[in-house]
Amino acid sequence: MPRPRNDNFLRALYRQPVTRIPLWLMRQAGRYLPEYCETRKRAGDFLALCKSADLACEVTLQPLARYDLDAAILFSDILTVPDAMGLGLYFETGEGPRFLRPLREELAINDLCAPDPYDRLAYVLDATRAIRKALDNSVPLIGFAGSPYTLACYMVEGGGSKDFRHIKTMLYARPDLLHRILDVTSQAVTAYLNAQIENGAQAVMLFDTWGGSLSGAAYREFSLAYMRKIVAGLHKEREGEKIPAILFTKGGGLWLESIAESGCDAVGLDWTVDLGDARRRVGDKVVLQGNLDPNVLFAPPEIIAREAEKILASYQAAGDDMTGLVFNLGHGISQFTPPEHVCALLKAVHAYPTR
Amino acid sequence: MPRPRNDNFLRALYRQPVTRIPLWLMRQAGRYLPEYCETRKRAGDFLALCKSADLACEVTLQPLARYDLDAAILFSDILTVPDAMGLGLYFETGEGPRFLRPLREELAINDLCAPDPYDRLAYVLDATRAIRKALDNSVPLIGFAGSPYTLACYMVEGGGSKDFRHIKTMLYARPDLLHRILDVTSQAVTAYLNAQIENGAQAVMLFDTWGGSLSGAAYREFSLAYMRKIVAGLHKEREGEKIPAILFTKGGGLWLESIAESGCDAVGLDWTVDLGDARRRVGDKVVLQGNLDPNVLFAPPEIIAREAEKILASYQAAGDDMTGLVFNLGHGISQFTPPEHVCALLKAVHAYPTR
Repeated sequence: MPRPRNDNFLRALYRQPVTRIPLWLMRQAGRYLPEYCETRKRAGDFLALCKSADLACEVTLQPLARYDLDAAILFSDILTVPDAMGLGLYFETGEGPRFLRPLREELAINDLCAPDPYDRLAYVLDATRAIRKALDNSVPLIGFAGSPYTLACYMVEGGGSKDFRHIKTMLYARPDLLHRILDVTSQAVTAYLNAQIENGAQAVMLFDTWGGSLSGAAYREFSLAYMRKIVAGLHKEREGEKIPAILFTKGGGLWLESIAESGCDAVGLDWTVDLGDARRRVGDKVVLQGNLDPNVLFAPPEIIAREAEKILASYQAAGDDMTGLVFNLGHGISQFTPPEHVCALLKAVHAYPTR
Repeated sequence: MPRPRNDNFLRALYRQPVTRIPLWLMRQAGRYLPEYCETRKRAGDFLALCKSADLACEVTLQPLARYDLDAAILFSDILTVPDAMGLGLYFETGEGPRFLRPLREELAINDLCAPDPYDRLAYVLDATRAIRKALDNSVPLIGFAGSPYTLACYMVEGGGSKDFRHIKTMLYARPDLLHRILDVTSQAVTAYLNAQIENGAQAVMLFDTWGGSLSGAAYREFSLAYMRKIVAGLHKEREGEKIPAILFTKGGGLWLESIAESGCDAVGLDWTVDLGDARRRVGDKVVLQGNLDPNVLFAPPEIIAREAEKILASYQAAGDDMTGLVFNLGHGISQFTPPEHVCALLKAVHAYPTR
């Protein structure tokens, strides 16, 4: 398997020299792109878009046609895994994701099984192969999944939540039940990410969107421990190339040192953490990915450039060179972002000296 | 002015020995109490409850009648200040607060004035005096206000927000306009808190609910700088007693050292920060207040006690004794909390050895 022609993203993750700082955007195939909205309309709804390998491939490639990005990320949703576990995912218009069968009863929790991704999630693997083929080794493809704790939040709450009171009640009152959910979900996610790797994903990322809502002790026990388990169970290489694993806990800045010791290759950071401070805290232990506030993209181009350069300069001041950095936003790009503003960001990051 | 008979809250803030660890709860006069719901119903709506000095006094005292708490906190809302600035506060049922006239236009921002609290917020000062009289020196009364950045979030967004894109667009694209809003709001908050002190508040707290949504650099420039200004402008004592100031930035754990250097007497912490780590980071510089996850109160009484004791033990292990600690939740108490569960928390905290 040859390296992609633009392999700066992989080189940064391997801590090798790059020809430019690699950049991709969380949720880069998303609603801020008119072409995405059109495909989604054609699909009927969001879930149909996820479940069609052809359409998922189409939207994955859209941002790459428009921008000079350094990686593609599989278009899918983190909740396909609990859906494959039988919880019945659906989307209420304007209300976000919901499950028909939230996990609250001990019996249902005991019955939970990790699905075979080649059976229940074949549509994702079909999309992965289709995307790799369409990319034709131009840039690497990132696979992803939700962290077990984040998936459990949706599974127990039955959808999004402001206070997470159902899962936290379980965490404090019946930790055994939550550990059972997290254990099965970890097995499911490990098999799912490995299947993505077997079908062409060249790096994988775990999105821990809600781990930051926990206390430090609960984070280590209920979120980080399971991400560590997943990382340990992942294929480390495929066809001679190392497959890097990136962990991203939104709001996890306080726990950076523990995350860096999880066995992952890179840590994603939200914008609350200064990137230079983060580099000083982890040294060469892990690569860092981040961390522009997505709201900066609402400002005029010259301010976008200045804010990106501040982050790059802060990283640079904390080390000898620019190795070990993947530029990204600190959270998914907003649906209200003017698409042309992304060009200003790309220009600034790609123009920054790499040494 | 004699000290309250139970002055443990003030003693902890003055770093003096206490007879028990003082405890109060953010939003302790709230919807989890059936008697509160009844008074609120009688008032008609939430805003009418805030604007009636008699009813605000009544609900302030309700949790103290039920529980052996160590402080009372004035019942009000942080948005009374922007309301007094002419933005037209109203509450949409089930939707949270809204402003009739959100602040987006340069002209309106230039016209913004700090209101005289004795004129536009007299109802809060009436309530403050009524509460002090009703408390009859049993426990101290805490006054409070929202931080300028948090108030500006509501003022610019026109209500609550998930992404804060309007205020952040202003922050990055027109920082001069945001600084103008924050400057006037700081003047308003300083005058308001000083008026609360003049009318009987024995400690004051600034609630910075949304400062944690900023990058570190933006937090220092747009939130902390203005809280520091307010603290510097507050009455330091009244009738011979020092008036302590508490700052609470939700999600501000990463910036604890900077907050501790703001001139405040105490820092409130949410539950993501380990209290022992926090004590090690700030030493004797500030008193700490916090930090149980409010969701722990959904667990059975013995687990509530165990989780509270973990926090107390962590604080103890990081220093020589138990001085300089006010126990609280890391966020407001949930409306779904079983009221009897609060007794388990009080019992555990008050039973903990003070040395």
